[in-house]
Amino acid sequence: MKRAERMVALTEILLSHPNELLTLGFFADYFNAAKSTISEDLMEIKKSLRLTGRGFLETVPGAAGGVKFLPAVSKEESNQFLELLAETLNTNDRMLPGGFLYIADLLYDPAVVRPLGLIFASIFREKKPEAVVTIETKGIPLALMTADSLGIPAVIVRHGNKVTEGSSVSINYISGSSKRIQTMSLARRALGTGKKVLIIDDFIKAGGTAKGIMSLMQEFNAEVVGLGILMEDALWNTSRLVNDYLALLQFGDPSTENTIIKPKLICCVK
Amino acid sequence: MKRAERMVALTEILLSHPNELLTLGFFADYFNAAKSTISEDLMEIKKSLRLTGRGFLETVPGAAGGVKFLPAVSKEESNQFLELLAETLNTNDRMLPGGFLYIADLLYDPAVVRPLGLIFASIFREKKPEAVVTIETKGIPLALMTADSLGIPAVIVRHGNKVTEGSSVSINYISGSSKRIQTMSLARRALGTGKKVLIIDDFIKAGGTAKGIMSLMQEFNAEVVGLGILMEDALWNTSRLVNDYLALLQFGDPSTENTIIKPKLICCVK
Repeated sequence: MKRAERMVALTEILLSHPNELLTLGFFADYFNAAKSTISEDLMEIKKSLRLTGRGFLETVPGAAGGVKFLPAVSKEESNQFLELLAETLNTNDRMLPGGFLYIADLLYDPAVVRPLGLIFASIFREKKPEAVVTIETKGIPLALMTADSLGIPAVIVRHGNKVTEGSSVSINYISGSSKRIQTMSLARRALGTGKKVLIIDDFIKAGGTAKGIMSLMQEFNAEVVGLGILMEDALWNTSRLVNDYLALLQFGDPSTENTIIKPKLICCVK
Repeated sequence: MKRAERMVALTEILLSHPNELLTLGFFADYFNAAKSTISEDLMEIKKSLRLTGRGFLETVPGAAGGVKFLPAVSKEESNQFLELLAETLNTNDRMLPGGFLYIADLLYDPAVVRPLGLIFASIFREKKPEAVVTIETKGIPLALMTADSLGIPAVIVRHGNKVTEGSSVSINYISGSSKRIQTMSLARRALGTGKKVLIIDDFIKAGGTAKGIMSLMQEFNAEVVGLGILMEDALWNTSRLVNDYLALLQFGDPSTENTIIKPKLICCVK
């Protein structure tokens, strides 16, 4: 096998097993090559990844060591993508009666939520979350893609109290905008105790749902290390129930502005 | 830039843009190289992908042409993965009171649903579906990952009639096992008319839900080109409301069998 061929195959295997530890021994066997040869190839791939901004190759030293491909996206590509998404949201007659924005088609389209998940992963990876938590339904794809890019499981909180997954924890919360009491619940075995969690949701208005999830997380002794939201409602001018969140887009006033959806500049994607 | 470096970067770009048409001109500009050089590199990558079984490089000829990376998984890797998954499901005290199997943690774990989506995509790609349809909640990650591997959007049917996404279509259906009348609905604009759709769900018992989704699809003049189910209930011995489906796992009788979950051999992954 020629060097270029082997490096292509190596890249294929790494990129299709994101966040998975692959040992030098595994590659040496697979390619029937010396570990030192594989090691040199991996150094080249590491350099190349840094140039294209598609992620990092993490080297884990020691006997049980190897390499891990950690997907990422560059700051430029993130901002470009968010601008394009805002543009799409501002066209096509997306305002529905009642001031709702039609966005479900995009929230369920992998071509949209895969990059969004990658952006959230790039922002929050350094916080070392162990699970991504969301509440059904619209936020699920976003949370799943974030979890996929981080190599951790997603945990989905259910509305109401209908979980048929063994014993569960339910809490009541007050939806901040409609002031109604609602219930959310999570199966006991869905999340181990004392985990670091990242909360992901598609929309924030008054913050009641986000605050509800945070209360529920306390029941699992979880530490909330981040709160990522796709879109914040800029029309909500009283204070929110949660403030320490990061939103990617902003929803403005349809009656006074032409550009309703605006991208927020992402400062901290590495 | 050396050839090996360029080929690694090419592979990175292709694999991180699955199902997206990338032109020779784009690569020629990116690498500041002749189109003929890029073309040779792509031929090598195409060969390598065939060897590792990670997917295909589809060449689209003509002025607007280019290449597309179509993710796939080999038959061996599919069967291996399903056997491992069945083994996991048979351990860890997963049987809940009432005969339910606890599986939500796996259904929300990208490390599980990403390969499963890839398996469904490999099976159903030749049917050329234009959207993957499922019903909330547990089947969403599976459907999304299938859609991602196929490069098409997912469409999520909601329970009840609570869609706030403009005008919607609702149907009543009878859950085949519980015999209760239920409602499912889908926003009009969630799915264009006359599309080819692939239905994906996590579980089939009597088939009432699947049949309900199929009726709903008729309202959109959609053609159902496939029905992929993660697990079929082998305890259901009367006839099902739908028969033309493909299941990856089988759920047997906990009272008479030691191995409750069995993988079904996948015949047709290319």
